[in-house]
Amino acid sequence: MICKYRFGTPLETGAVVAPRPESPLPMPRFTVTEDPLTLSCPLPEGAAVYGLGENVRGMNKRGWHYESQCTDIPHHSEDKLSLYGAHNFFLVSTEEEVFGLFVDDPGVVHFDIGYTRSDLLSVTVKSGDAWVYLIEGETEADVARQFRGLVGRSYIPPKWAFGYGQSRWGYRSEEDIRAVAEGYRSRRMALDAIYLDIDYMERFKDFTVNRETFPDLKALAADLKRDGIHLVPIIDAGVKIETGYDVYEQGVEQGLFCTDERGENFIAAVWPGQVHFPDVLNPAARRWFGRLYGRLMEQGIEGFWNDMNEPAIFYTQKNLDAAFARVEDFKGRNLNLHRYWELKALFNYLGDGPNSYHQFFHQMEQDGKLLRVRHDRVHNLYGMNMTRAASEAFDELAPGKRVLMFSRASYIGAHRYGGIWQGDNKSWWSHLQMNLQMMASLNLVGFLYTGADLGGFGCDTTEDLLLRWIAFGIFTPLMRNHCALGTREQELYRYPRWETFRDLLSLRYMLLPYLYSEYMKAALTDGLMFRPLAFDYRGDARAREVEDQILLGESAMLAPVCQQNATGRHVYLPEEMKLIRLRRAGEWTEEILPAGDHYIPVALDEVPLFLRPDRLVPIAAGDADCVMREDFDHLSLLSFVRTEAEYLLYDDDGESRDYNQQSHYTAIRLNAGGALTVAGSQTVTLPER
Amino acid sequence: MICKYRFGTPLETGAVVAPRPESPLPMPRFTVTEDPLTLSCPLPEGAAVYGLGENVRGMNKRGWHYESQCTDIPHHSEDKLSLYGAHNFFLVSTEEEVFGLFVDDPGVVHFDIGYTRSDLLSVTVKSGDAWVYLIEGETEADVARQFRGLVGRSYIPPKWAFGYGQSRWGYRSEEDIRAVAEGYRSRRMALDAIYLDIDYMERFKDFTVNRETFPDLKALAADLKRDGIHLVPIIDAGVKIETGYDVYEQGVEQGLFCTDERGENFIAAVWPGQVHFPDVLNPAARRWFGRLYGRLMEQGIEGFWNDMNEPAIFYTQKNLDAAFARVEDFKGRNLNLHRYWELKALFNYLGDGPNSYHQFFHQMEQDGKLLRVRHDRVHNLYGMNMTRAASEAFDELAPGKRVLMFSRASYIGAHRYGGIWQGDNKSWWSHLQMNLQMMASLNLVGFLYTGADLGGFGCDTTEDLLLRWIAFGIFTPLMRNHCALGTREQELYRYPRWETFRDLLSLRYMLLPYLYSEYMKAALTDGLMFRPLAFDYRGDARAREVEDQILLGESAMLAPVCQQNATGRHVYLPEEMKLIRLRRAGEWTEEILPAGDHYIPVALDEVPLFLRPDRLVPIAAGDADCVMREDFDHLSLLSFVRTEAEYLLYDDDGESRDYNQQSHYTAIRLNAGGALTVAGSQTVTLPER
Repeated sequence: MICKYRFGTPLETGAVVAPRPESPLPMPRFTVTEDPLTLSCPLPEGAAVYGLGENVRGMNKRGWHYESQCTDIPHHSEDKLSLYGAHNFFLVSTEEEVFGLFVDDPGVVHFDIGYTRSDLLSVTVKSGDAWVYLIEGETEADVARQFRGLVGRSYIPPKWAFGYGQSRWGYRSEEDIRAVAEGYRSRRMALDAIYLDIDYMERFKDFTVNRETFPDLKALAADLKRDGIHLVPIIDAGVKIETGYDVYEQGVEQGLFCTDERGENFIAAVWPGQVHFPDVLNPAARRWFGRLYGRLMEQGIEGFWNDMNEPAIFYTQKNLDAAFARVEDFKGRNLNLHRYWELKALFNYLGDGPNSYHQFFHQMEQDGKLLRVRHDRVHNLYGMNMTRAASEAFDELAPGKRVLMFSRASYIGAHRYGGIWQGDNKSWWSHLQMNLQMMASLNLVGFLYTGADLGGFGCDTTEDLLLRWIAFGIFTPLMRNHCALGTREQELYRYPRWETFRDLLSLRYMLLPYLYSEYMKAALTDGLMFRPLAFDYRGDARAREVEDQILLGESAMLAPVCQQNATGRHVYLPEEMKLIRLRRAGEWTEEILPAGDHYIPVALDEVPLFLRPDRLVPIAAGDADCVMREDFDHLSLLSFVRTEAEYLLYDDDGESRDYNQQSHYTAIRLNAGGALTVAGSQTVTLPER
Repeated sequence: MICKYRFGTPLETGAVVAPRPESPLPMPRFTVTEDPLTLSCPLPEGAAVYGLGENVRGMNKRGWHYESQCTDIPHHSEDKLSLYGAHNFFLVSTEEEVFGLFVDDPGVVHFDIGYTRSDLLSVTVKSGDAWVYLIEGETEADVARQFRGLVGRSYIPPKWAFGYGQSRWGYRSEEDIRAVAEGYRSRRMALDAIYLDIDYMERFKDFTVNRETFPDLKALAADLKRDGIHLVPIIDAGVKIETGYDVYEQGVEQGLFCTDERGENFIAAVWPGQVHFPDVLNPAARRWFGRLYGRLMEQGIEGFWNDMNEPAIFYTQKNLDAAFARVEDFKGRNLNLHRYWELKALFNYLGDGPNSYHQFFHQMEQDGKLLRVRHDRVHNLYGMNMTRAASEAFDELAPGKRVLMFSRASYIGAHRYGGIWQGDNKSWWSHLQMNLQMMASLNLVGFLYTGADLGGFGCDTTEDLLLRWIAFGIFTPLMRNHCALGTREQELYRYPRWETFRDLLSLRYMLLPYLYSEYMKAALTDGLMFRPLAFDYRGDARAREVEDQILLGESAMLAPVCQQNATGRHVYLPEEMKLIRLRRAGEWTEEILPAGDHYIPVALDEVPLFLRPDRLVPIAAGDADCVMREDFDHLSLLSFVRTEAEYLLYDDDGESRDYNQQSHYTAIRLNAGGALTVAGSQTVTLPER
């Protein structure tokens, strides 16, 4: 049951697609105080709090505080309050009950989850204005499903986007891209996408291509596609201010950029130097900006990633001018610590943050009219609406077809328009575990298509970290290896153990039937593909504490090795399971383990996969070098059958948007005697393994 | 066996106190290449590498690279190559053999421990000049003991310095200090020291006291001492440039500061603004600077901590002037990403690092003569020599007595003059585990008196993190709670669970007889008080991988909970052990666990301590509020006796320096029947418990 409460004068954010009637205050469960608006409730001992999407720390968010304020933040350390997304939904789970809270306000919202006092949860809404939804349910999954019913169906990418992708900030030319393709293909290593970071553009101008370094993008895209590889370019939020650049000139002419307090186009600076921001909160600007993606689609591009859309700001012209004016005061002085800090700060805080967000304005659609709103009031909506712009345009540009789209910044509701990646993480072992934890937190707020930069974006990776990370990444819907300019090269074929990497990739393709099926069922039924153990084993207090294992779909549990130099790890099994040690497509060993605690050896070239009792995992041969060449019609099963196991397999053509056909489903039943039944409309030959 | 090899023209650093004859090259085990000087050896599969002292990542350093370059670095994240110390000793341990390498050079030394290639270790000495000591031995402890024989006996603090200390950067006045003392004493919570961070000084001038905020330090120190509490002030490396400040004027007059390339006193800036650095590599400057500690000792001070002695530099005047000159170029321009980064960097890299270290010079003693040396060549010796200055002065200022001294920066050999704390860590759960790991790494390079800032220095702590961290901190010789200006207050009495904190503190005092005895025996016999499990269980491959448990002394193993929201943890026992769940002094439960893997519940108010078979832990009543009021004459035993257990207890008066008396030892023997034998010179009544 969902109850909706009004506080102050809420804005319509677009998060909710299934309107609910307003319930009268007071709301149950929470104590409400004003100035600032704060909702508090007790946290009993043992209660866990899940959700808040993209944030640091564990799946159980208890014991820290968080702030919804989309931020371009490269150091995802334990003390951070915000990352790139604003996902104001959490659920409180005790042995007795579960309820969820969604706070729909695009300004700063602060969540104190037992931080100030370990027995108290409180939510503070800076603006004082919010729609608040209280969701009561039987289980975590039930509350999550109700929430998703409220905010809409999760984005579904094309099937090829479940393949492996290689990226690096630093690919500068067609030659670089072809060398990466060759690096994988010449070693028969699977690859479905190569990502283009900012250097493909002409002076970082959106929707342009540098003709010197990429003389014929269309031909390149076509060549690669013949080889099963998609090119996926980046699109940034800021539009370069440059006379003669038609996108800039159109935006100026049609008045579609954000403006400053005088009504003039707001000047900030990002990669290209000075830019204007498309006012994506204005439907006209969304339509205009979204159609521009077509310029690249005409060249054969079928997927994009939206970046810098918190929006990230290096500096605003106003702040920069002020800093230059102030720097004079420091010259020729003996600077003590305070003055020195001021000087250091002078050019360090010119962009991201409250210091800039009050300097520009939107024409935001509210009740069918345009309302001038200062950015800080609606900051967290920018990224979502940039992605919405693209998504709505795709409906026209590629009707009935899926286009790959994922974003860095997001708000609740953005999960309808695209996925998100988990931002600019680092080559830290702790970030491999955070990748796992965030899978659960992001699924809970609707983002099913997600994954982290495998191997780590910032800092230098090591071969063993990359091996362990890829061994986890083969399970995440978005499986992308990405890293930053200046860091150690991370293409898998460059490492001494490239054959192990090739084998790990083959496992991804082998598992695709299960991964795709589970993804699609979660998307179509508002389910959770990744879940903390506690969700499925509610009565088990031990399961509640596990922060380095995760349930994947209905049949499997994952327990990656996240520690340097470890050749094994402890695992907790809430029930008897079958441990399958995967080595490569078609090669694995099986072992049945009783419920309880285990230490399991896991070599650097092994991937442990746990099967739950009476569950099945349909698999393919895993011998293709891209998704569309994998044979989904002749499958096998990983199985742990004590009496009888059933699995409902979903499959489709992977590109059209008619998801709800009966013909997409195949029912598979296997009993302990080995008898197999397959019922459904698709041809799926299933020999047991 | 130790062999000493010469490369290039090594400097005499003072690290080694027991000279060895030079062995002829080539050296065994390592391949040597020039330009730059690089020593490489293969790393077989399964080989672990221990040592390198103060550094990030695990006890086993394999899988990352490190650089000895003492640095004032507040973010101890996994990607860091250097912290505050330069500890160029490591040992390579395989199942078959153990050997150690000590590279004695005070410039930049780089250690690639299976980072570039997982099967290769290489050491690069930037200067090309070094004494290299190769140590062969039977076991890790054997190699470590030989190394310590080379570099000298570890520092021994007064016994009260094994008590609990409270610190915070932000105590501004006598009132603040008295309030802290009152906070603890009024609740009968133990406390042995309160630390004075930089604000006790007059404008951050070394050896001064702010008379407005601390009108009578001597009376304050005396009052507190009557209450069993020692005041421990900070001393910084930089001496403020201020006319009329006698320390500054003496240094100028006597020519005892570091100079710039023109021979003028070098100007850098730290807390007080512009400073000169005492040239502690010059014996005359050491004598002068060391004697200045006497000014505070005359006021009743018996302990100090040396800070900012990497030396930390906020800016050099030269760099600051250059930045001001360059900033003009950026005005009024459209800054693209590269130019913006340059601008941001302009005022961010004015101090610490190579950019400053080539700007100043020392008069360093070499073969009895003074040699003008540029700082970058000898950078890593600065902190050690600042502490040496104090230590040598203490011999004259307090003859025969121990003075508490610990430092931030250090080099091999500094362990003779004082301890070190583990630098400016953060309130991160991962730093609790790093605290444990660093105990082992630092013991191995000679630093026995060490500990981390409990609760974390930077960022905001939480009550549960502080509880878990104190539960580990009760075992570290330096047990100090310290935090930074602007962070959440961390005094234990401020928290709702202050009674649990009081109980945890009582455990520290209960354990003191064992902790002190183990410390003294390790110091006097060049032993290791904290050791990775692998050191004592060489044949056990599993033990080699354990990174979150540690052996403490001869009888105990620790396994702290380092995970948020966890109410237990996995533990690996290399042999049968007795788990003692300590709750407060005199209250615990016991349980014998077989060798192997276990999950053990550990509540927030419990401390797990594992006893090895046939080992004893002598304990006191734990009812005193400071070390000197604890009764060391009537002890009890924690015991796990299968047949018979022996323990050699060390104790002394805790302040004089005549360590090697027979009378300090008591031999205790307990058999399985409960029969107790006590033989020794001291009165130690030992009822079994």
